[in-house]
Amino acid sequence: MVTTIPEVVVLRLPLYVRVLVALDARGQVVVSSQELGSLLHATPAQIRKDLSYFGRFGKQGRGYQVSNLLMELRHIMGIDREWSVVLVGVGQLGGAILTYGGFAPQGFNIVAAFDADPSKLGGSIGNVVVQDIARLKPEVQRLGVHIGIVAVPAAHCQQVVDQLVDCGVRAILNYAPYQPLTPPGVWVRDIDPVVALQSMTYHLNAAEDWGLGRV
Amino acid sequence: MVTTIPEVVVLRLPLYVRVLVALDARGQVVVSSQELGSLLHATPAQIRKDLSYFGRFGKQGRGYQVSNLLMELRHIMGIDREWSVVLVGVGQLGGAILTYGGFAPQGFNIVAAFDADPSKLGGSIGNVVVQDIARLKPEVQRLGVHIGIVAVPAAHCQQVVDQLVDCGVRAILNYAPYQPLTPPGVWVRDIDPVVALQSMTYHLNAAEDWGLGRV
Repeated sequence: MVTTIPEVVVLRLPLYVRVLVALDARGQVVVSSQELGSLLHATPAQIRKDLSYFGRFGKQGRGYQVSNLLMELRHIMGIDREWSVVLVGVGQLGGAILTYGGFAPQGFNIVAAFDADPSKLGGSIGNVVVQDIARLKPEVQRLGVHIGIVAVPAAHCQQVVDQLVDCGVRAILNYAPYQPLTPPGVWVRDIDPVVALQSMTYHLNAAEDWGLGRV
Repeated sequence: MVTTIPEVVVLRLPLYVRVLVALDARGQVVVSSQELGSLLHATPAQIRKDLSYFGRFGKQGRGYQVSNLLMELRHIMGIDREWSVVLVGVGQLGGAILTYGGFAPQGFNIVAAFDADPSKLGGSIGNVVVQDIARLKPEVQRLGVHIGIVAVPAAHCQQVVDQLVDCGVRAILNYAPYQPLTPPGVWVRDIDPVVALQSMTYHLNAAEDWGLGRV
């Protein structure tokens, strides 16, 4: 399939999977574009358009088969398989990432971790040994890894991202409060807790304006 | 303003701010809905519709004044002021959150931190003293805080969220790999790194399918 899918649709795919997993878990067999739309805060037309990029899943007027759509989307997204991941930066945040319980059950396995601080090298966290950042390229290439997690201070973010790209990493999950530049063909997603907070203060502020009292 | 704004629009507001800050920083005075759309992966019509919920910002055919729109949106979102925040869970992740450099410059100040582990109490991280979770309610009420960050294991997430809600917290940033239930009038945003990874594996997988070799 060589059609170019708009990035905004790609960004929504994990949310489709999240919703379909929940429907499947409660035994629902069929879902309409209307119901999917209400669960995903989108119009039924938007849902049908999104899914049409990936093939003909639904039958006119009959809705989508939940388990089939879920299986197909998981395959298209490449999440019906395991992925190896490397971590750069094993400070407090990096340590928390290594012990985070959410990655492995979803098929993401952190197989190597790197840091520049000599005092951290050789120690192991959650079965992963911390290696010298100088070993990044040979290790990433030996392990054939294409996903990197960056958990270094903002000031080192761009340099580490450049190194990862140079090693052949093409997907980067960035925890640093800095937006790195990357060449075409490399994807970056920022973990940005401030954006999440800012989308809630609107509500707190609105409640205040509406005379519900100082919140 | 009592109009109900669709939640999907509220979720986009921080992204508008992000883009407008960048335009403002490079000295751009006016921006069209076309340009905003291309920066935000949306149609110009969608941009105009989003912004119309908040008033009449643009002039027909003239675009939006960058600094004015930015100032208005920051005010509407309540991010032209400081917010106090409490943290629950001071494990490795909580410690990283307390020392994260991204919150304070955006006006979010963590003013208190709580944990249930007696060995952690009384210590201080980044000027914040770790207090017993039993002190949560009196402290939250004394400080008048309405935003909480949850960094506890998944198994304790719901219980901690219930406690925060009981204290009057109405906006929760949740780092646990668990989706807590909350009553109406309480907002939760999940920091979910797996969703971010899953939206990138699509690209890695697609490159593979397109014959660019095993990635």
